[in-house]
Amino acid sequence: VFDSGVGGLTVLQELLVELPHEDFIYLGDTARFPYGERSAGELERFSLEITELLLARRAKLLVVACNAASSAALDRLRERMLSTTLGVEVLGVIEPESRIAAERSRNRRIGLLATTATVASGAYDRAVGAYARRHARRASPARTSRRSSSRAFPFDHRVVETVRATATPLREADVDTVILGCTHYPLVAPMLQRMLGPESALISSGRAGGLGRRSLTRAELGNPDESERAYRFLCTGDVEAFRALGSRFLQLPIEEIEHVELPSAVAA
Amino acid sequence: VFDSGVGGLTVLQELLVELPHEDFIYLGDTARFPYGERSAGELERFSLEITELLLARRAKLLVVACNAASSAALDRLRERMLSTTLGVEVLGVIEPESRIAAERSRNRRIGLLATTATVASGAYDRAVGAYARRHARRASPARTSRRSSSRAFPFDHRVVETVRATATPLREADVDTVILGCTHYPLVAPMLQRMLGPESALISSGRAGGLGRRSLTRAELGNPDESERAYRFLCTGDVEAFRALGSRFLQLPIEEIEHVELPSAVAA
Repeated sequence: VFDSGVGGLTVLQELLVELPHEDFIYLGDTARFPYGERSAGELERFSLEITELLLARRAKLLVVACNAASSAALDRLRERMLSTTLGVEVLGVIEPESRIAAERSRNRRIGLLATTATVASGAYDRAVGAYARRHARRASPARTSRRSSSRAFPFDHRVVETVRATATPLREADVDTVILGCTHYPLVAPMLQRMLGPESALISSGRAGGLGRRSLTRAELGNPDESERAYRFLCTGDVEAFRALGSRFLQLPIEEIEHVELPSAVAA
Repeated sequence: VFDSGVGGLTVLQELLVELPHEDFIYLGDTARFPYGERSAGELERFSLEITELLLARRAKLLVVACNAASSAALDRLRERMLSTTLGVEVLGVIEPESRIAAERSRNRRIGLLATTATVASGAYDRAVGAYARRHARRASPARTSRRSSSRAFPFDHRVVETVRATATPLREADVDTVILGCTHYPLVAPMLQRMLGPESALISSGRAGGLGRRSLTRAELGNPDESERAYRFLCTGDVEAFRALGSRFLQLPIEEIEHVELPSAVAA
């Protein structure tokens, strides 16, 4: 499982709960966080690099927990897997979120909150369109502040005002379903839900746990052993910062964290 | 809305999201936290006192967000309301949680995690029995450590071991549904879910938001004004401790907190 930072830990949490009998490795590329302003080329390069590292650690399922990386690199990662004989499954978050949103929306007005890179890729438009058969409307994609994740607790006035400025155009566009297209947004989900009203459905993280389970079952890659297995962490930035912020996202104990360096980060 | 501490803020969160057009006051009786080891008589006295204070502030709906207080005092609070002409609705958490658990369980083996006072009251047995028509089995009610709520972040080994010691008898009793009968337990829900396996349903907080909305609608007490209204806090203990811990539970900004003293706490 990989992400630009700790946000993808909400996706990992679902996987750990749904698949307790599998080992997990999570890589947070915190040295290069956030991915939201990166070019598609950069995101593809980072994602391939991280994938090589996780394959070297014998991953059998690859979950791209970052929406920006999913939007830019998923096709390329699947190609990479086809060139191996490893039988590695690849899951992103955009297709499942889009499917859920298309199924939930009654008025076919779906809002998307995502970072610049994700919006620019058009990946959600394509995926929602594919599921809804006709293109659902996308209301006012909003950029978040680059530092919103580290300021979200406690909520200061700037966070509240940012969320309110985001909610207003969505409400005016009469959306009934909003995709939270970045793994950090669930932190402000209650605030956004209150501003949008209880009838609005907020969609995030795409039921990663259930999808992961089905992928492993289909590919006959599940671990038959019924013991509770381990999970551990790699990060490219500061280990203690990862631990401190990560436990808020994961809501499970974080023990072993290993610092790793990726080739292109070293070159830069 | 009241609770012994900050745990009931998870219930308040649902109410704030479901009822954005109503004003809310939350009282945390943090000076006397926890309620889990109190006698039924004490819980009834504390609950009545808090209710008088909230009625004096013109509450029209009273939500007892604490499971122990719900189990000991709900009938007495409803009697108190019948003696007034205020038309105040009273909601607890035990009846709705029991109903959801009885509906969800397939094998009719429902686990209850609750504090001593709540288990001793037998309130869940009665409520689950009423919904399930025949008495569902209750597996190994477990006491939590009195201080688990303040130690839950970051998760240390003692928390993990306590949760594991709790999960083991539930798994052995083959329960398929577990009621989290204390407002602090959702903090360890992912950990417990991973230990029990993905097929187990964890039930908490009883859909307070939806119930609150239906109560107000039925009693024709809803606010017709469509603006976003305010929420504020009273607490009997330290205001800054309430703020620091409370924001983790509420996941919404906490601004105004007023220190209050309750008559019997002053006398003691």
